[in-house]
Amino acid sequence: MTVSSSGGPNDALAESQWRRCPFTGRWVVMAQVRAGRPMDFARPAVRRDGAFCPFCGGNEEFTTAELAARRDPATPANAPGWRVRALPNKYPAVLSHVDGTINDHALFVSRPGVGVHEVFVESPEHFTSSSQLSAEQFADVLWIYRQRLCDVRRDARLRYGLVFKNVGALSGASLEHLHSQLLATPMLPATISDELASGASYYQRQRRCLFCDVIAAELAAGERIVATTDEWVAFCPYASRFSWETWILPRQHQSDFTCLTDGQLGSLGSFLRQILGQVEATLPLVSYNYLLHTSPFDTLALEHYHWHLEILPRVTSVAGFEWGAGFAINTLSPEKAADMLRQAP
Amino acid sequence: MTVSSSGGPNDALAESQWRRCPFTGRWVVMAQVRAGRPMDFARPAVRRDGAFCPFCGGNEEFTTAELAARRDPATPANAPGWRVRALPNKYPAVLSHVDGTINDHALFVSRPGVGVHEVFVESPEHFTSSSQLSAEQFADVLWIYRQRLCDVRRDARLRYGLVFKNVGALSGASLEHLHSQLLATPMLPATISDELASGASYYQRQRRCLFCDVIAAELAAGERIVATTDEWVAFCPYASRFSWETWILPRQHQSDFTCLTDGQLGSLGSFLRQILGQVEATLPLVSYNYLLHTSPFDTLALEHYHWHLEILPRVTSVAGFEWGAGFAINTLSPEKAADMLRQAP
Repeated sequence: MTVSSSGGPNDALAESQWRRCPFTGRWVVMAQVRAGRPMDFARPAVRRDGAFCPFCGGNEEFTTAELAARRDPATPANAPGWRVRALPNKYPAVLSHVDGTINDHALFVSRPGVGVHEVFVESPEHFTSSSQLSAEQFADVLWIYRQRLCDVRRDARLRYGLVFKNVGALSGASLEHLHSQLLATPMLPATISDELASGASYYQRQRRCLFCDVIAAELAAGERIVATTDEWVAFCPYASRFSWETWILPRQHQSDFTCLTDGQLGSLGSFLRQILGQVEATLPLVSYNYLLHTSPFDTLALEHYHWHLEILPRVTSVAGFEWGAGFAINTLSPEKAADMLRQAP
Repeated sequence: MTVSSSGGPNDALAESQWRRCPFTGRWVVMAQVRAGRPMDFARPAVRRDGAFCPFCGGNEEFTTAELAARRDPATPANAPGWRVRALPNKYPAVLSHVDGTINDHALFVSRPGVGVHEVFVESPEHFTSSSQLSAEQFADVLWIYRQRLCDVRRDARLRYGLVFKNVGALSGASLEHLHSQLLATPMLPATISDELASGASYYQRQRRCLFCDVIAAELAAGERIVATTDEWVAFCPYASRFSWETWILPRQHQSDFTCLTDGQLGSLGSFLRQILGQVEATLPLVSYNYLLHTSPFDTLALEHYHWHLEILPRVTSVAGFEWGAGFAINTLSPEKAADMLRQAP
């Protein structure tokens, strides 16, 4: 796709564009998928009534062409026989091929809307709740996260790949068939920048990983722990922004999710299935997001960063105020939340 | 209210507590209003069916005791005859009187949940849409913002007062009777810190106000302007995070909202009424937040900051991902949004 841009500060919006807020420095993706239909990104034209779902096995001809899949080796691409598929997002927020210009006006800074936006279909069955997936299916999903991150990071224009999942209407999910997404971007998400800066500053002072020290302190205290195995830990973070917010981390220091072995993917699949099961048992039909925070594409193994998965249940709709103000109000202590999650069947 | 706390890193949550995220440095308010009822803050026990509303004129005995009001001088407090009232929030996120301890553990930093949380009832009539308010009523509402900010800033423990308004279910609003809120806090909201830092850095280089320069550039470009008067300007910001996001600013440099004269309150009331009317005409029954960004309590007039009002329409529910990732995806260009708003009747 081409984008016409004269480079002036007030160009009409291209098909997809990064813009930097002059007041906060934060980047916004302007993703004008189709003129006059601003809801398209949030609500693709997929029916929710179960009558037809393009993500179900057998309907491969109705999706974009698959980028990767875990499937029966005897089956061809874009045909049945898969367990998990990666597809280009039909309504991408960012685009691989954009001929825009870099705009460094003093006040209005923009970049072409370069990036990668993929969808991962998590099962051929029309599952709508994570608890319907087997541990093996969870491992397949994690496998495709690793596979796609490893592939996409080879694009030198991109600095970060954010894997996330929206479940339920309050989370922003637009399709009920279980899926997750990858948004790979030329700039770091602000939360990742903040975590890297905190981690680097702590390491500078202590010569230890901040995340490893928090894990040790949480294990010693115990009250915010949701579950542990030899390899994994899940806790409700001390300053949880969302009620029942739960993080999963490897107990052994590791900065980069893509360094996980197949064996680790398997045990993480079982652990993630257990934790999401506890969340869904505590909060039936809850909407939630999860976000995979891993190291940037352009770094080697980092001593001061520690990848993790953040599960953010969405039980209230207050995030507009919180996004505008920049601090969260949480009405449930993480100690109580962890206690409830531990008691889930 | 008293809070028991031994000062250890893993104390049970007090009634209200500030906690700092060790990974990002951001503060979270833990507001456990009532044990086991985490929805209380979001959903006070007020019926939405119109059968009874404690905010309506005549029902003053059902609210907390008023802190200030604009009313017929012949009428006593907490009785009919008012046009706008300020009340302590019945379900406060923060509390004026908390005997907690300051906790500076290496990883788990907390402060007592000190702050002020007030509600402003915007009319004795049971209005549910801003367009039902007259320009004079808007001026009354702005008057009470100024009055309460001036009063609350005298508490030397508090650094910031954030006035905000939630309208509609998607905004987090819990009552339909028109109201807004004040949350005054011992720390700066992250968005305000970011704006102050950008403003200071720009002023350092240019010796001019960043906001004044953006206003001039927006007026010159015109395409994102929604409306102007001699005193006020409204535009959709260049890097709008929300579709139809609209900011209102004074054209003359002014950092502190509380320095507004009565005459300015009157003209701003008319202008705000017009802009919200354009938003509601473009997006019937839309949920939205607005946020008043003004200078911190502990500063004098600032050359590098410029107060403004941010109107954030809530047409999608994607903020959970955005809050977690730290960048926004907007599917409508501010140029198109401004064009639509300009054409509203």
